[in-house]
Amino acid sequence: MATLYGLGLGPGDPELLTLKALNVLKRVPVIAYPAPDTGESFARRIAAPHLPGGQIEIAIRTPMIPGRYPANDVYDRYGAEIAEHLEGGRDVAVLCQGDPFFYGSFMYVFQRFADKCAVEVVPGVSSLGACAAAAGRPLASRNQVLTILPATLPEDDLAARLKGSDSVAIVKVGRHLEKVRRVLDSLSLTNRARYIERATLAEERVLPLDRVSEGEAPYFSMILVSGPDGRIL
Amino acid sequence: MATLYGLGLGPGDPELLTLKALNVLKRVPVIAYPAPDTGESFARRIAAPHLPGGQIEIAIRTPMIPGRYPANDVYDRYGAEIAEHLEGGRDVAVLCQGDPFFYGSFMYVFQRFADKCAVEVVPGVSSLGACAAAAGRPLASRNQVLTILPATLPEDDLAARLKGSDSVAIVKVGRHLEKVRRVLDSLSLTNRARYIERATLAEERVLPLDRVSEGEAPYFSMILVSGPDGRIL
Repeated sequence: MATLYGLGLGPGDPELLTLKALNVLKRVPVIAYPAPDTGESFARRIAAPHLPGGQIEIAIRTPMIPGRYPANDVYDRYGAEIAEHLEGGRDVAVLCQGDPFFYGSFMYVFQRFADKCAVEVVPGVSSLGACAAAAGRPLASRNQVLTILPATLPEDDLAARLKGSDSVAIVKVGRHLEKVRRVLDSLSLTNRARYIERATLAEERVLPLDRVSEGEAPYFSMILVSGPDGRIL
Repeated sequence: MATLYGLGLGPGDPELLTLKALNVLKRVPVIAYPAPDTGESFARRIAAPHLPGGQIEIAIRTPMIPGRYPANDVYDRYGAEIAEHLEGGRDVAVLCQGDPFFYGSFMYVFQRFADKCAVEVVPGVSSLGACAAAAGRPLASRNQVLTILPATLPEDDLAARLKGSDSVAIVKVGRHLEKVRRVLDSLSLTNRARYIERATLAEERVLPLDRVSEGEAPYFSMILVSGPDGRIL
């Protein structure tokens, strides 16, 4: 069996690829990447300027249904396709936006191969560091606790967890923007919240939360909440 | 005024530098880096294979006293030295192991220049993603909460925060190893804890926590605690 790579490509800017990811990318005969039902794969877009050409490509097309996670059979099917290449001695790199193990869909592939063949995970720059850099806000320092909260959580759960935190990153904001805004407002934390959209891309936007217009946020958005020093509440 | 860079160099393996960090590193006339009172700077060691030579170097030597944070006057002094170069039109890159804004000492420099000149923070691969990759353990997925706990916290605080978490990364383990071990034992979480030391370096070690010998851990160590699915408790 050949080697399966989980290749962290960073948050979006193709210059934020690591040298290691670049080397793997140029060497492997097969690349696979998550992609929506129709349209472009964000992971492939990050890798595009670096692809040598002539590689076999597997677009892992999963229906993006808000609030639903991809069905097992989708990953079983693509897993079988990947396995064929590995058994044939061809290394496969799964392209991952950000870091493969930070809320990445690579884990569905990883689960299927971890005990079966050599798997190498190449860590990447995560959206966390990228958003903090874009906002000019340290994530955490000294003995501060940093909490990563998916915006998908219920309102009362979000509120309870914000209360005990020093510094918070709310990920997967997307269609949960108004819910998150309500929670932060109710805790008087809006003035400490910074909204970051498409960090490191040309379209990057950084705004105080109260200047973000109503509605939905794009999938690639994050809200950082931090106090001037110590606990946020 | 020239530009000040906070340059994330990744967790240790010089191949985990980003292309962007590499480009800045080769271009700037001045580099600065944290260093112990005597001996080698870890950040400079990561950058070493990539340095073009002939740059002005500022070793920010801060006494490493366990439990003490560097005194303001140390950073005031080095800040003045950095300011001189910036005022003279020379870009300065501060080398940061991992990511500059993830528990990095760069924030002490950042605070002094954020309002005075152009500051660009280049995010890097953090120890978080590196340790997860080394351990073969996803950090978080779906709607899981990820909590980053500094091992410097008091025992009861660590215990309380572990109880409410889905997935936990305990950073800055070092001389707090036995305290952390006691807390995890008392919560019957030892079997879910993985210990990672010097991730991505040749000396990397990954062990179940109960196989780590007693005493101190090195400064660059982390403990990941994750459940098979969902909450750890």
